[in-house]
Amino acid sequence: MSSQTTLVEAVGNAQLTDFREAAQRIRADIIHSPLIPFAGGPKTIRIKAECLQPLGSFKIRPAANVLQTVGSTLAGRGVATASAGNFAQGLALAAQRRGVGLTVHAPETAARVKLASIRALGATIVMHPFAEWWSIMSTRKTGAADGVFIHPVCEPGVILGNGTIGLELAEEWPDLDTVVIPFGGGGLSSGIALALRALGRRARIIACEVESSTPLAAAFAANAPVRVERRPSFVDGIGSNGVLDEMWPLVRELIDDVIVVPLQQVKSAVRVLALRHRLIAEGAGGVALAASLSPQCKGTNVVAVISGGNIDPDTLCPMLTASDE
Amino acid sequence: MSSQTTLVEAVGNAQLTDFREAAQRIRADIIHSPLIPFAGGPKTIRIKAECLQPLGSFKIRPAANVLQTVGSTLAGRGVATASAGNFAQGLALAAQRRGVGLTVHAPETAARVKLASIRALGATIVMHPFAEWWSIMSTRKTGAADGVFIHPVCEPGVILGNGTIGLELAEEWPDLDTVVIPFGGGGLSSGIALALRALGRRARIIACEVESSTPLAAAFAANAPVRVERRPSFVDGIGSNGVLDEMWPLVRELIDDVIVVPLQQVKSAVRVLALRHRLIAEGAGGVALAASLSPQCKGTNVVAVISGGNIDPDTLCPMLTASDE
Repeated sequence: MSSQTTLVEAVGNAQLTDFREAAQRIRADIIHSPLIPFAGGPKTIRIKAECLQPLGSFKIRPAANVLQTVGSTLAGRGVATASAGNFAQGLALAAQRRGVGLTVHAPETAARVKLASIRALGATIVMHPFAEWWSIMSTRKTGAADGVFIHPVCEPGVILGNGTIGLELAEEWPDLDTVVIPFGGGGLSSGIALALRALGRRARIIACEVESSTPLAAAFAANAPVRVERRPSFVDGIGSNGVLDEMWPLVRELIDDVIVVPLQQVKSAVRVLALRHRLIAEGAGGVALAASLSPQCKGTNVVAVISGGNIDPDTLCPMLTASDE
Repeated sequence: MSSQTTLVEAVGNAQLTDFREAAQRIRADIIHSPLIPFAGGPKTIRIKAECLQPLGSFKIRPAANVLQTVGSTLAGRGVATASAGNFAQGLALAAQRRGVGLTVHAPETAARVKLASIRALGATIVMHPFAEWWSIMSTRKTGAADGVFIHPVCEPGVILGNGTIGLELAEEWPDLDTVVIPFGGGGLSSGIALALRALGRRARIIACEVESSTPLAAAFAANAPVRVERRPSFVDGIGSNGVLDEMWPLVRELIDDVIVVPLQQVKSAVRVLALRHRLIAEGAGGVALAASLSPQCKGTNVVAVISGGNIDPDTLCPMLTASDE
């Protein structure tokens, strides 16, 4: 994306054909994840099990889409990104499958186990002091000739790739009226919202956060991104110190509401997904189910997007064997 | 089924339309379970995640099909079955959804937790001493006017319902050449085999057992059902003291091979399904993956049918946190 183009200009008017082309591009990379009726509760909830995707998260969708989009222009050059989480993993898998070189710029604070996984998929990792890494995230300049830079969040191809979930939902459940989506950077919510809009579907887009990190609730309250505290918790796939300025115009326009859920309800949701549905969900996925079950969620036909399933067994198991359900 | 008709006569020549009608009948009861590429290994394996079905097992398919089939002839009478496991649960759910009365005849040895679940779904439970219960399984006479008796295994509608999995597999993966299926009573293997045959598809049908109970391997070796020991293990969804005489002609004709796997490999397979695929599988499901990975399985495009996910967290968790992978 040129730095002169805003994200709203780039994707705000995305057409149905844009999302259909994205879905076509990533067909061989993803599974068509099931939409499973949730067992129990006063409203009708279905869970979109994106935790079943390769590498356990929806991130393979945006990663494969953006890589396939830039692929024809690479002419032997590789791609680079600044991320040390699920997006870098997804991009590494997509790049490996296509024989494209990938350089991942990671902060020194990145988890070693995730870096090892990215390296095992064939990517080159360059470590940076945190401030230098954050500068790459902001400027998109890696300081090296390592190919086309792909931003993990503020990237049209990423948002369109996320939107393929919206296409599937609309096709699978014509009567859905509400979609509840974990809020990390806002790319997942925006993509799904834009796809439903391109289809001419009116559905309420509810973003959800956990009480330990509420950048979106704070931004909505202040009508602008503000800096918030992020307390550590087992919900490590979402949460930040603030909504990115670049994402705010999209997020403000596309998200109808935000629901903040307590950690204890997230644990309970993760437990229920495992015991009733045999699905392993990470904290962020549990947040979506917990928010869907909340009285604040007024929809009658509600989709909870279970964004991922990357949770450590040592974190998961105490929730499963707890006797408080 | 009339006692004068053998199962081979009843379903041996089942046509494609029989399976398509079954699939249509159960549409609202099941999910279309995903067929997920297995991550890793020298051959191409895909896992059919039947553990994601309502109540965590494929049994909702045969239960809903048989109930829908007999439904129009009930005229207010209910149905009865002799089972205390996943089939009775599936039948109870299907009956509850249709407002049909169900009587479940259970042996006094049945697990209280399963009986509670069946009762919670609205069924009436009648307990019997084991010998009396076994007599009901053999004669189909419950000693009460409690409606149409539905046998949990030797029942054409059950086998056709199981076969709907075969239809889905053939449609989803035209190139599959081998299907690996946990062997309990033989109904799941037979149903899938018959459906593929009705479609004109040649695929190798491999049944699998765990070392602690090998009735099929013993029957193949003796060329007739023989009595075998069944040692208790965490693999509680399959295994018996012998192939049922009534099933043997179908089983002998339709199953190409049997693979017996060690318990330790089943544990490892359950672990891999959870950690790499975020799926909770019960022991029988783990047996299918373990057998697929075995060198004895010669196929190149192999489906492992993960039949269910009903495993106690106290059994599952030690497998997840073990460090032996």
